[in-house]
Amino acid sequence: MQTVTSRDNTAVKNACRLRDDARARAAAGLFFAEGPKLCLELARGCRLRALFATEAALDRTPALAAFAGATTLVAPHVAEKLAGTASTQQVFALFETPGTDPALLQTAARVLALEGVQDPGNVGTLLRSAAAFGFELAVLGPGCAAPFAPRTLRASMGAAGRLPVLCVEDLPAVLAALKGRGVLCLAAALYGAQPLHTVTAGRGGVCLVIGSEGQGLSRPVLDACAAAVRIPMTDRVESLNAGAAGSVLLWHFRAAALRDGEEADG
Amino acid sequence: MQTVTSRDNTAVKNACRLRDDARARAAAGLFFAEGPKLCLELARGCRLRALFATEAALDRTPALAAFAGATTLVAPHVAEKLAGTASTQQVFALFETPGTDPALLQTAARVLALEGVQDPGNVGTLLRSAAAFGFELAVLGPGCAAPFAPRTLRASMGAAGRLPVLCVEDLPAVLAALKGRGVLCLAAALYGAQPLHTVTAGRGGVCLVIGSEGQGLSRPVLDACAAAVRIPMTDRVESLNAGAAGSVLLWHFRAAALRDGEEADG
Repeated sequence: MQTVTSRDNTAVKNACRLRDDARARAAAGLFFAEGPKLCLELARGCRLRALFATEAALDRTPALAAFAGATTLVAPHVAEKLAGTASTQQVFALFETPGTDPALLQTAARVLALEGVQDPGNVGTLLRSAAAFGFELAVLGPGCAAPFAPRTLRASMGAAGRLPVLCVEDLPAVLAALKGRGVLCLAAALYGAQPLHTVTAGRGGVCLVIGSEGQGLSRPVLDACAAAVRIPMTDRVESLNAGAAGSVLLWHFRAAALRDGEEADG
Repeated sequence: MQTVTSRDNTAVKNACRLRDDARARAAAGLFFAEGPKLCLELARGCRLRALFATEAALDRTPALAAFAGATTLVAPHVAEKLAGTASTQQVFALFETPGTDPALLQTAARVLALEGVQDPGNVGTLLRSAAAFGFELAVLGPGCAAPFAPRTLRASMGAAGRLPVLCVEDLPAVLAALKGRGVLCLAAALYGAQPLHTVTAGRGGVCLVIGSEGQGLSRPVLDACAAAVRIPMTDRVESLNAGAAGSVLLWHFRAAALRDGEEADG
């Protein structure tokens, strides 16, 4: 196999554009990921289109041999360009962005909805926890970090590849539709809301709606929710880390389902 | 008030050393914090020794006037030096590191213990959630990020100033002592452990023991625990974000205490 030694190689430049440019990702239907662990994890749920790696990196991670047919060997200085930094694990991949069937909105019993969660680390953590806790669908409203942007992928550790994600413009309309088929839409709030440990999901399913750390939820989204829920905290802190708070909320409904025997452990 | 315009000012250089050097912090019994929100939050629980701010920053945050007696005005380029970067909120403070009475080990009913949690963001998130969920003491064993290092402080949003923290060398000995007075020491694990939703704390109190993301807990620490607990996840993810997982574990015991009426909400 030939090794790409030019930083101006067309495939390398194309991969860098997909890494940096959300529009290019959308147009190509592809996304970019870095790191052997993340790439292997994503390959379980997404279709790999191309892999770039140094010879040393392939030697370190024999499992990558499964993608030999799609692999391009690159020199270490080309890997640095793909990483955008000098510290790199020297493995990169392009995957096809998985499509999510909007019909899931008609059937999913546990849904996570986000509005204005800008921080990619928080979006990634929430997608990861939602997948871990048996949520079937994530709906990302306006202002959220892109699920397949590099930093979101890193924080989600590839969960975005196995939890269906819908990006929508009109979140209140989506919530209204969920409400229409009996799903309890719950807004995460800090004050004036029902304490989490007293909340039950009901039989129609639940949609947990989380807003930005600073702003909270917009009025139209709040109005579309049936109730609000808060995590009862001591007065020793003002707030929780957004990823931690959201994970606690998501866990509550997982724990309830496990206790009720509605789903199996593990 | 005179404005410090020299980056070589002795007080400024001293503050930078405390920011960067854990040994200097320990020797002086002081720690360094940046940002108006974090400094105000810390001032609720820790004694402020010195505040550095630009005139513009003081104008933006009138509440800082409460510390006028300890305030040094600095020019914007001096604020850059204190921040270590060009983007800064231009407010910095030195606080006295709060001491924690080891006698708390004899009385605390809910304890968080960490071993080898190196990431300051994770340590900060866990301290913040522990404070929020009514834990009374955090015990940091070897290999943990320092609770008053700048990045830990940022992630904890000052919780380290209001949750007593003990740094110990011999964590198994501490766990043995807790066990001796009837505290249930629970090791957080991924496999082969009791699922969280079936765990009850018992009357003697609980100590939740969390290890590093990569390595888990050491054998001596595991042996000192009475049992292990895991968060039951679907097979869609390999693991959770460490801060999120720890927060879910901490919340479980808060929720149980709230349900049992052992403590008040809020």
